[in-house]
Amino acid sequence: METLKINEISEILKLLKKRKIDNFDLYTVIAQDYKTNEILMVAYANDEAIIRTYETGKVHYFSTSRKQLWLKGETSGHFQYVKEIYIDCDGDVILYKIEQIGAACHTGNRSCFFRKIE
Amino acid sequence: METLKINEISEILKLLKKRKIDNFDLYTVIAQDYKTNEILMVAYANDEAIIRTYETGKVHYFSTSRKQLWLKGETSGHFQYVKEIYIDCDGDVILYKIEQIGAACHTGNRSCFFRKIE
Repeated sequence: METLKINEISEILKLLKKRKIDNFDLYTVIAQDYKTNEILMVAYANDEAIIRTYETGKVHYFSTSRKQLWLKGETSGHFQYVKEIYIDCDGDVILYKIEQIGAACHTGNRSCFFRKIE
Repeated sequence: METLKINEISEILKLLKKRKIDNFDLYTVIAQDYKTNEILMVAYANDEAIIRTYETGKVHYFSTSRKQLWLKGETSGHFQYVKEIYIDCDGDVILYKIEQIGAACHTGNRSCFFRKIE
């Protein structure tokens, strides 16, 4: 494991690389329970979402359906508090280890991955 | 947790929904260690990759750089053996819990998420 000590948020952005997703330039974001490592959800972020997450400690995404910044939990109260931040080798995926308040999934399930195929 | 018992692979595909990623119609795929829940990598799949993974038990992706089907481990020997399959609420992300042979990351790290931001 490498630890990258940053002084300001712009240093994170330099490590990242966007992909074109549904016609937006975005990063893929995974929210993972910081204690159990359960994967809770996958969504997307733009630079603003990354910055707001870093500054507030609450996960912000970019909603591709609403086409706007999305503070997770803003309406539901189901905030995600960032404990650790990782980026992948390509810099196009960000992994937040989080404390999840309530359910991560809009269905009411704790995780969006509540369907197992057999 | 819901368990979806399927009889043939086409039933999985009906549950899935592609996104436009770098001009390809793809699903996002997470490979997670089936024992530790460590996230090992994130990549993409098309229908063919899903089918080949299901049929062979080895994870196949679609390489957006090489623009072709990609059997993980074909050159490195670092195969990923599928233990469990999950899909998220939207059907655009597939989670494979896997047994990883060797390193998942092309850098030689076990996980692609070997960089922690502090």
